Amino acid sequence: MSPSAQEAATIEEHDPLALAFRRTRDHSLIICQTLELEDFGLQRAEFVSPPKWHLAHTTWFFETFLLKPFLDGYRTPEPRYEEMFNSYYNGVGSQYPRHARGLLSRPTLQEVRRYRELVDAGMSKLLAQSAHPERATIEERCRLGIQHEMQHQELFFTDLKYSLSINPLAPAPWALPTGGNEIPATSMAWSAFDGGLKEIGFDGHGFSFDNELPRHRHFLPPFALANRLVTNGEFREFVEDGGYTNPRWWLADGWATVQEEGWEAPLYWQREGDSFLEYTLYGLLPLDDAQPVCHVSGYEADAYACWSGARLPTEQEWEVAVRAESSAFIDAGHNLYHPQPTGHAAVLQQLFGDCWQWTSSAYGPYPGFRTAAGAIGEYNGKFMSNQWVLRGGSCVTSRGHVRPSYRNFFYPRDRWQFSGIRLAHSVPDN
Amino acid sequence: MSPSAQEAATIEEHDPLALAFRRTRDHSLIICQTLELEDFGLQRAEFVSPPKWHLAHTTWFFETFLLKPFLDGYRTPEPRYEEMFNSYYNGVGSQYPRHARGLLSRPTLQEVRRYRELVDAGMSKLLAQSAHPERATIEERCRLGIQHEMQHQELFFTDLKYSLSINPLAPAPWALPTGGNEIPATSMAWSAFDGGLKEIGFDGHGFSFDNELPRHRHFLPPFALANRLVTNGEFREFVEDGGYTNPRWWLADGWATVQEEGWEAPLYWQREGDSFLEYTLYGLLPLDDAQPVCHVSGYEADAYACWSGARLPTEQEWEVAVRAESSAFIDAGHNLYHPQPTGHAAVLQQLFGDCWQWTSSAYGPYPGFRTAAGAIGEYNGKFMSNQWVLRGGSCVTSRGHVRPSYRNFFYPRDRWQFSGIRLAHSVPDN
Amino acid sequence: MSPSAQEAATIEEHDPLALAFRRTRDHSLIICQTLELEDFGLQRAEFVSPPKWHLAHTTWFFETFLLKPFLDGYRTPEPRYEEMFNSYYNGVGSQYPRHARGLLSRPTLQEVRRYRELVDAGMSKLLAQSAHPERATIEERCRLGIQHEMQHQELFFTDLKYSLSINPLAPAPWALPTGGNEIPATSMAWSAFDGGLKEIGFDGHGFSFDNELPRHRHFLPPFALANRLVTNGEFREFVEDGGYTNPRWWLADGWATVQEEGWEAPLYWQREGDSFLEYTLYGLLPLDDAQPVCHVSGYEADAYACWSGARLPTEQEWEVAVRAESSAFIDAGHNLYHPQPTGHAAVLQQLFGDCWQWTSSAYGPYPGFRTAAGAIGEYNGKFMSNQWVLRGGSCVTSRGHVRPSYRNFFYPRDRWQFSGIRLAHSVPDN
Amino acid sequence: MSPSAQEAATIEEHDPLALAFRRTRDHSLIICQTLELEDFGLQRAEFVSPPKWHLAHTTWFFETFLLKPFLDGYRTPEPRYEEMFNSYYNGVGSQYPRHARGLLSRPTLQEVRRYRELVDAGMSKLLAQSAHPERATIEERCRLGIQHEMQHQELFFTDLKYSLSINPLAPAPWALPTGGNEIPATSMAWSAFDGGLKEIGFDGHGFSFDNELPRHRHFLPPFALANRLVTNGEFREFVEDGGYTNPRWWLADGWATVQEEGWEAPLYWQREGDSFLEYTLYGLLPLDDAQPVCHVSGYEADAYACWSGARLPTEQEWEVAVRAESSAFIDAGHNLYHPQPTGHAAVLQQLFGDCWQWTSSAYGPYPGFRTAAGAIGEYNGKFMSNQWVLRGGSCVTSRGHVRPSYRNFFYPRDRWQFSGIRLAHSVPDN
Repeated sequence: MSPSAQEAATIEEHDPLALAFRRTRDHSLIICQTLELEDFGLQRAEFVSPPKWHLAHTTWFFETFLLKPFLDGYRTPEPRYEEMFNSYYNGVGSQYPRHARGLLSRPTLQEVRRYRELVDAGMSKLLAQSAHPERATIEERCRLGIQHEMQHQELFFTDLKYSLSINPLAPAPWALPTGGNEIPATSMAWSAFDGGLKEIGFDGHGFSFDNELPRHRHFLPPFALANRLVTNGEFREFVEDGGYTNPRWWLADGWATVQEEGWEAPLYWQREGDSFLEYTLYGLLPLDDAQPVCHVSGYEADAYACWSGARLPTEQEWEVAVRAESSAFIDAGHNLYHPQPTGHAAVLQQLFGDCWQWTSSAYGPYPGFRTAAGAIGEYNGKFMSNQWVLRGGSCVTSRGHVRPSYRNFFYPRDRWQFSGIRLAHSVPDN
Repeated sequence: MSPSAQEAATIEEHDPLALAFRRTRDHSLIICQTLELEDFGLQRAEFVSPPKWHLAHTTWFFETFLLKPFLDGYRTPEPRYEEMFNSYYNGVGSQYPRHARGLLSRPTLQEVRRYRELVDAGMSKLLAQSAHPERATIEERCRLGIQHEMQHQELFFTDLKYSLSINPLAPAPWALPTGGNEIPATSMAWSAFDGGLKEIGFDGHGFSFDNELPRHRHFLPPFALANRLVTNGEFREFVEDGGYTNPRWWLADGWATVQEEGWEAPLYWQREGDSFLEYTLYGLLPLDDAQPVCHVSGYEADAYACWSGARLPTEQEWEVAVRAESSAFIDAGHNLYHPQPTGHAAVLQQLFGDCWQWTSSAYGPYPGFRTAAGAIGEYNGKFMSNQWVLRGGSCVTSRGHVRPSYRNFFYPRDRWQFSGIRLAHSVPDN
Repeated sequence: MSPSAQEAATIEEHDPLALAFRRTRDHSLIICQTLELEDFGLQRAEFVSPPKWHLAHTTWFFETFLLKPFLDGYRTPEPRYEEMFNSYYNGVGSQYPRHARGLLSRPTLQEVRRYRELVDAGMSKLLAQSAHPERATIEERCRLGIQHEMQHQELFFTDLKYSLSINPLAPAPWALPTGGNEIPATSMAWSAFDGGLKEIGFDGHGFSFDNELPRHRHFLPPFALANRLVTNGEFREFVEDGGYTNPRWWLADGWATVQEEGWEAPLYWQREGDSFLEYTLYGLLPLDDAQPVCHVSGYEADAYACWSGARLPTEQEWEVAVRAESSAFIDAGHNLYHPQPTGHAAVLQQLFGDCWQWTSSAYGPYPGFRTAAGAIGEYNGKFMSNQWVLRGGSCVTSRGHVRPSYRNFFYPRDRWQFSGIRLAHSVPDN
Repeated sequence: MSPSAQEAATIEEHDPLALAFRRTRDHSLIICQTLELEDFGLQRAEFVSPPKWHLAHTTWFFETFLLKPFLDGYRTPEPRYEEMFNSYYNGVGSQYPRHARGLLSRPTLQEVRRYRELVDAGMSKLLAQSAHPERATIEERCRLGIQHEMQHQELFFTDLKYSLSINPLAPAPWALPTGGNEIPATSMAWSAFDGGLKEIGFDGHGFSFDNELPRHRHFLPPFALANRLVTNGEFREFVEDGGYTNPRWWLADGWATVQEEGWEAPLYWQREGDSFLEYTLYGLLPLDDAQPVCHVSGYEADAYACWSGARLPTEQEWEVAVRAESSAFIDAGHNLYHPQPTGHAAVLQQLFGDCWQWTSSAYGPYPGFRTAAGAIGEYNGKFMSNQWVLRGGSCVTSRGHVRPSYRNFFYPRDRWQFSGIRLAHSVPDN
């Protein structure tokens, strides 16, 4: 270890930010260890990215927003990366076409790893400059970069699953641990919550995205939330009741999508005689009725809710309910890359570690929201149309990434995230 | 006049509903009097319908929801109309393909007029049966049918304008009245409104659509609304400042649409040297800087607001502000099929009779909203995704159709309605 | 009758060209007499044109290529027609978008008729100038204009049929004459022809298109041609044998088209229980097994031929065979707008008056072919790729328009022409 | 070396077919030695395939048509390969979707190599069975498989080039040899050929594809052929003369394609100021005016010919001319993967080793052509529509693969092959 490396290591021990940076960066490499080199280039559709691209783009983020503006003497290994690994920041410049990320065989994985190392070294240097005149901005952007990388760690899983699933060999990049007691699905129970004028939005210390702010008041009638997620078994009843062939349950745009896409079941279900198989990151498995239904679009979630006589919660209901419950819930309780059944449901379960939960709320700005200046301001604000808010977290969300005020957002037709259904209903106001 | 016709006429005089029915039905024919027969079949895109189809479909509505279920002995002139003139009611049955409505040369206009007469006669008979066991439903559906026909009267204008505008001859189905003093645009003034817990939704007597209900409480921070609409002159500055070529001002989906569609100005503007012409229902005219900008999409409205340093109002802000002002405002003050300038703007102007006003609110259900049972329930509820709410009314809206709680809705990319921009901004809460 | 009109009429009596012009122009109006005004604007797809557009475009042809260059003092009624009614002549200028011809409600039919009268009057004047310095060119172009109008008379029928057929009312613009003995289909007979070095191409006097020239030698092995066209009954066997679901019989592009378009039978067949109905210009009729199969694409013709163990003829085989037979065959023998059965087939039947016959020949230039200079040169030459030659004529071809050397051409996926199947096979060379 | 391996090797020495098999198989691996592993999965468009897929599919061909039917005891390593690596043989079964071949990260390259070894071993065994009852069929199919693999060796280059070219890093999988004298382009010279009744089609011993048969007579007028290919410098004049913006030179379908695709120059040209760069398999290089223009579509070839006052040859003219010249021409004279200039052109040059040459001939069956029975019959016959014949060979064609009667075929819009232009003109017949 060279002196300067040692020095850096020492500083890191005492700098929680440098430590968080290092751990997050390492984690991105750890999660792709079991892949074949051939898997790193897969991109099945414009809306997913290859594993290698995620590794490069997250690096590009630190290079673009931290090293280039703030680290004296920094030189990029390849100026053309600026365009190649820019996702959507028009403020930075034009972008290599998104649909063709899977065609970037060069740089090779090895070269991307070298790019990561170079940028990591630069970041170590920069973070060690505690008296840098832009220290505050550097810290803020570094924190954003870490959260950004965590988001791409989740996308790594969802995108990879989508790309691999078309392969007739049904590849299983991870091996399912043996054992595991089978947990039968329990009947649905509900938790009721009072209405009133509520505070919504991030209120804590530490990091939040700009879209969780400003904290503001929102009036809510009383409501109830299901204690657990809708299961595969329950959703199968909807399928078998002709749910996908009856327009009655569907939003007009949802029904048009069903016709257009030929949907007959959730994304990864494959009919096999009278039952279903499900493609998972552990390969093709028999569908487990007790597990939460996963990889449904917002339209399917809404149609199921309608068919079942309930509805989806609003994002404010979800947030208010979760805050009202105990604080121990963030941990998923399992380390599998697939949502797991819950055995008891006296309180709200499966909040953060199984499936993201569609809400009925269109993704929009909170009252008083303003985007940041510059390219960084493109992070969240420009997506505030046509998407729906999902709350919670999933089994492939990185630890420490989510919180009750976290607002995830996808188009209601999207199905490739680990997205599931938590039901709600209104409660008569006395 | 035959005895029974006389009898019906007498009854009508005393029955406001029958009178409203008759007047609305007549109005649909009056507004298309100046067309050429050839114009009645035009359908330029899937989202517009030919004039003749509007005449037939509004008739179909009364036949399907009133005569067939409630008028003893009613026989349709043509069973195949059930499918041909069904717009989107899956509960009624399958539908003739929407994009091909312009290909229905048969029935001819004369046959459609006969269909109207037959159904009108049936409705007269039915409305005269004051003791009909289903009288309450009949009255309710008749009122809905009248409002439904008024909506199609507006679509008649917007669809026709869209279809005619592609014709290199720039047809002018109406002649512009001569005279008319030129009104210079006044500078922008704002009205401020207090925040607080407000009641939102329909509260009056008489008719409202289900999507205006239930009336409910909504918390609102203080805000200000522009007293008049954004003008052509103001919007031209945005165009000339490169507004359509700079992604900075646009939502991501909006920017993608600009690229995809090649937008460079509002829908009906045509560049001519240094200035613009505008296609109107009075033909191709020089762009009038003092008139409100019209036929902009929600994306363009949002981008303009962003560029100007303001924002679009929420639908609740709009409703609260309008209720707070005097009650005389519903009248447009002119009878032209084109939005007109306003000369004074001490209070909110141009609310209902010039352009619909895009809000930043995604169209969704009010808390506690439930769709009605049966095919009628498809009227509004199933469209509650991906669209934005517009408030107010336009110069082609039928008299008596709108109110402060009225929620119009279109996709943010839609431009063929008479849609304009009213700005808003937040006011610091003391 | 004014003196000059009388004079013109007198001249016409003595000028066969002026007479042919007048008769052709009149015929275009006669064939659309039974239409409703609403039918004149129909355009179901980009590849068809509305009846009114055909009437205007054929007029535009005479105006553009004769009156504007050659008639002193001619003034167009509307300069914008130059673009509106230009089909594809880049040499003349840009063209109104083809897919939107159905949206030209203006000019109205009445205005188009006036345009025709004006141009006809101009043509009478021009043709009366027997000493015009450009007389030879004028005559040549006038003859081309007449043949061009005849082609559009045929397109009038095929396009109208295609546009009306989507209407659930199955409109019948013509009434089927009663009577008519039923003719049973006869078994297939073949005529054999010697091979050798043959002369191909136009050799007669009078008019031919440039694509029938130059006359040239072509070497042909011996072959046989079916004496009649394939019937509906025979084609039905192919359908019922699973012909549309077995890739074995199809060209690769044909099979891709079958999948893409969902073809299950010829264009106008509608399955009704165990049998078929067929949409015709006389309305929806039970499929007549003895009639020639009609409205099949080149791919279907080729697949049927393959399934039946035969093949399609080359265009040279067709031409050689037809020349070898008697010369009385040009007359269809019936005046119906639908192909009719033939009762006897000792010699080649159904050559010109029932269905065009797909050949296996790609449409290309004859050896030594050169396009004419100027916009007129765009008439035929630029279409010599990707299309197939059809030979013969159909029941909606204008009298006097076709001849043995006539080369019609359409894309192999086209089905809206009256196109049928004549089989061929090779004969061992002794 | 095990005894049986030794035995096989010994047999191979004495069996030219086994030797040809081995050499061809080896060659497929040799040509991809310089690639990065990441390059093996690239598929930029449906019409290209990844290198790895070519390696697997050529193996599948031998497995499917030889080992499975004829080698006792053969067991496939993976039954799902049957579908995954089937290109278009409907007779074998359904096919994995073509556009998604780039998503087959599994089997890995290593697994595909093992699949190759296994099949090669099987083939060695089978070829050693000289008394096999199906020996004749085995030999015939083995020869076809070898030629098939050679075709994929060429596609390997063209597909890889197309996929890599989108990468902003402009990867150069091969290094350009240094040195190389610059050869100036010489002026165009022509060779004249007599017309008459000519024999066309394969006449030799050894292998030919079925589409080169039957040999037959074809009558040809006299003609002349250019002694060399059109150069980049000549084609640049066409570009600079506005060739891509003037419809006059283009076939209608070609002009539509130019508009649709936004073509402004040959596929791999990139404008750089006043000159051009060209992407090659040696990276991005300045355009060399003396080299043959390459990667033009049939439409561009035809438009250029038209602009230059010449025309494309027919396939028969090309074949007759080439046969009339000396027999030493098959060798390219260079070993580069890019077409090279020629210095002298007293006779026909650049026939087989630089660029394929577009002809004006539509690809169709020769008189008397019949497809073979079974899935093998799908090899050539089903593609005989909408494509054009190219003659010759290119700098990436495998040695020993082509001959004067060889018929290559592509759609006239295709540009990713090494396709160039040889001009022709007609000669007056005395």
